Amino acid sequence: MTHDFYDFGLIGLGVMGRNFILNVADNNFKALGYDLDQEKVDALIQEGGNTERVNATTDLKSFTEGLSHPRKIMLLVPAGKIVDQVIENLLPHLDEGDIIIDGGNSFFTDTDRRESYLQEKGINFFGSGVSGGAKGARRGPSIMPGGNREAYQHVKPIFEAVSAKYKGEPCVAYLGPKSAGNYVKMVHNGIEYAMMQLTSEIYDILKKGAKLTNEELHETFSTWNSGRLQSFLVEITAEIFDQKDELTDAHLVDMILDKAKQKGTGKWTSQNAMDLGIPIPTIDMAVSMREISALKSERLAAEKLYPKKDIPALDKAKLIDQAEQALYFAFIMAYAQGLHQLADASEEYGYDLDLATIAKIWRAGCIIRAGLLADISEAFATEPKLPNLILSSAFVPKIQESISAARELAITAINHGIPLPGLSNSLSYFDAYTSGRLPLNLIQAQRDHFGSHTYERIDREGIFHTDWKEK
Amino acid sequence: MTHDFYDFGLIGLGVMGRNFILNVADNNFKALGYDLDQEKVDALIQEGGNTERVNATTDLKSFTEGLSHPRKIMLLVPAGKIVDQVIENLLPHLDEGDIIIDGGNSFFTDTDRRESYLQEKGINFFGSGVSGGAKGARRGPSIMPGGNREAYQHVKPIFEAVSAKYKGEPCVAYLGPKSAGNYVKMVHNGIEYAMMQLTSEIYDILKKGAKLTNEELHETFSTWNSGRLQSFLVEITAEIFDQKDELTDAHLVDMILDKAKQKGTGKWTSQNAMDLGIPIPTIDMAVSMREISALKSERLAAEKLYPKKDIPALDKAKLIDQAEQALYFAFIMAYAQGLHQLADASEEYGYDLDLATIAKIWRAGCIIRAGLLADISEAFATEPKLPNLILSSAFVPKIQESISAARELAITAINHGIPLPGLSNSLSYFDAYTSGRLPLNLIQAQRDHFGSHTYERIDREGIFHTDWKEK
Repeated sequence: MTHDFYDFGLIGLGVMGRNFILNVADNNFKALGYDLDQEKVDALIQEGGNTERVNATTDLKSFTEGLSHPRKIMLLVPAGKIVDQVIENLLPHLDEGDIIIDGGNSFFTDTDRRESYLQEKGINFFGSGVSGGAKGARRGPSIMPGGNREAYQHVKPIFEAVSAKYKGEPCVAYLGPKSAGNYVKMVHNGIEYAMMQLTSEIYDILKKGAKLTNEELHETFSTWNSGRLQSFLVEITAEIFDQKDELTDAHLVDMILDKAKQKGTGKWTSQNAMDLGIPIPTIDMAVSMREISALKSERLAAEKLYPKKDIPALDKAKLIDQAEQALYFAFIMAYAQGLHQLADASEEYGYDLDLATIAKIWRAGCIIRAGLLADISEAFATEPKLPNLILSSAFVPKIQESISAARELAITAINHGIPLPGLSNSLSYFDAYTSGRLPLNLIQAQRDHFGSHTYERIDREGIFHTDWKEK
Repeated sequence: MTHDFYDFGLIGLGVMGRNFILNVADNNFKALGYDLDQEKVDALIQEGGNTERVNATTDLKSFTEGLSHPRKIMLLVPAGKIVDQVIENLLPHLDEGDIIIDGGNSFFTDTDRRESYLQEKGINFFGSGVSGGAKGARRGPSIMPGGNREAYQHVKPIFEAVSAKYKGEPCVAYLGPKSAGNYVKMVHNGIEYAMMQLTSEIYDILKKGAKLTNEELHETFSTWNSGRLQSFLVEITAEIFDQKDELTDAHLVDMILDKAKQKGTGKWTSQNAMDLGIPIPTIDMAVSMREISALKSERLAAEKLYPKKDIPALDKAKLIDQAEQALYFAFIMAYAQGLHQLADASEEYGYDLDLATIAKIWRAGCIIRAGLLADISEAFATEPKLPNLILSSAFVPKIQESISAARELAITAINHGIPLPGLSNSLSYFDAYTSGRLPLNLIQAQRDHFGSHTYERIDREGIFHTDWKEK
């Protein structure tokens, strides 16, 4: 171990951690890693090459003594109790003013708890979501830090250097106090769930409806990715259709089981949106569809009882065109819902979030990066108090021009029994959100009828109750 | 205060409590009420008439001393901390073996906590949902008790006497240990949310699409209520359209604001279903729509930006027929989802629920009572291990015969921009649940591509990862 001080410490040298620390070193900072696992430590030192800038140890004391002050220590360890354990182990070795950054997907209330616990001890704690997967960590992720604004100044140069760049602008910014960063990352993941679900639905109808081959699907998604649908998820979807299986002659995508797993951040997004009272049905449905996908044996039994009808080959060109418009429309709805949730959470939890900045740092590096985010960022920069993207004057024409095709595609799907639940929820959301009058007056009447829950009126203020006539 | 002992004690003499205790007295039990509020005590004594069978006090000592052993004390107080306070106040006055019954909508984990706390003190605690609103409490509710099976024997004669009857069978049964009763009531309310949402959507399309008047809506729902849609909610919906406003010349339903409130049980159902991993998208959407309804000013602003097109008057008879079939189909999906959640919760929380019994005690008294529940109860009695109602051989023809019309109605709605989100989620749910192959293989590919999350294959066991080719 060299006696020079290291600028940055990283705990947890799994794939993400190793890639992140190498990224830090690439950007001319000296970075020191720590892991209990000697193999991981060795792997990093070997891969790190330049041992002047990257080093690693299994000894916590050497680790903390090797860092410059205030120490900047990032954790890339699994969310949950292990974060608390690492913090407890670290504490005896830290000095006032040191900075701990949790780079994992911790639940935001855990971050709040840790932040106030560490604040009492004079330690600054950042919940800082990192998106971009293993490759992003290596080449430039989107980073979403929240915590103490002053302390962030010590972290800023490193994060700005290692983050992805969008036309030269770093995809990282101080987002707000306490768990603001974790919360934003959680909702990012909720939007990611929705976009993945929507992409898979479009794949489904193009395959089952228009009978597209994998080659045609590859072509279609590649073409889309050079248009207004340009996005990381559309890009990798194109790549996926081009991937051959190594074990058979087939395309790999056809050999993969249709049971999607989840790690919980999408679920948290939906559950917390319900606590806030913010509707995000496209994201909710993405969570539900992962659940339905897991019920494979029930689905197989059900399909036998309700055999699917053969679907005639539909007009390819027309369906592809409708699908592009539908996906564009539904992507907008997914962002609209997530950002609506962020706007409300900002008030509820005192984050003081700037939605334009959030959309900005999502333009590159992260999984939901897309050309659309530049437009979204501009929309919120122009109208910072926008309660919902649907109300943005810049988005009215984008939505208007794509919705008819989205409706037609949804109708085709319903006719043929192909589930496009994310798309249909995007349409329902739009149609309900743009309805000045919804039929929930009836629900209020029902609640007052059976439970005396009272109701409001359209023509005068106050709370009313009626003794409803029974037959 | 008479010196005779009372069979049953009730704490909380609000509308529900007063009605419930009068119901107990009507059934020849002697019942004693307690409330801190002298006015409520007086109101009960006056309304109770026969002071030999009903009495009330504001003195907790007199209350507990007046009850026969083991004491059976029911709380009908708001869910939350007040339940804990009442329990603490009661404890010094109780003896081992006494029984406390929480009749409110407490969150099920609170019930588990209270049950084990009181068990240590030798007190039996029941979480016992009561459905039927104020009128149900008076005339016969559906009661869903959970707790200690032996102790239930003391409560059983009273609950069976006061509960609603379906063809002579009481709508109450011991459901399971711990919070089983509260949990079942929570899911009951989730189904209730879905059925109310679905009813309101059908109202919407009949009004906006087929231009039905309130008189015609009254007729339509009344007719439906004498057919296979027979249910409490359809019945009161018919009554609602017949109700004139007292303050104007209009029908009352037209004067009610379209902002539906909620007390949280529907939200809990959705949030907990996500924890279990059970999809209940029709219920989720009912929660979302209450949230969207609350955003009245945003909706009005959005409607200006996206003006609704005029809807031509659609064929009344055809739309009414489709609507009846769609509502029948969607009601089945709402029950299927709720019961699926109960089946899973039964395993997860060790409730050992009997779904046939649950459907049975819902056949009368409660808000979701419906003719359909007799069929559902039979389906689960015939096939107790049925994972989902959709798989019931008795339900295959019911679903098959109604789904085409449900699709047509959903298509009409999408075409005209009328949101029928509960119906479309019921269709999506059915179409996805009956799909042996879903497109979530793509999601697994995406997750492995960007995050090395691995995938399973269709042709061999194990966990796989691919280094995906990038363009």
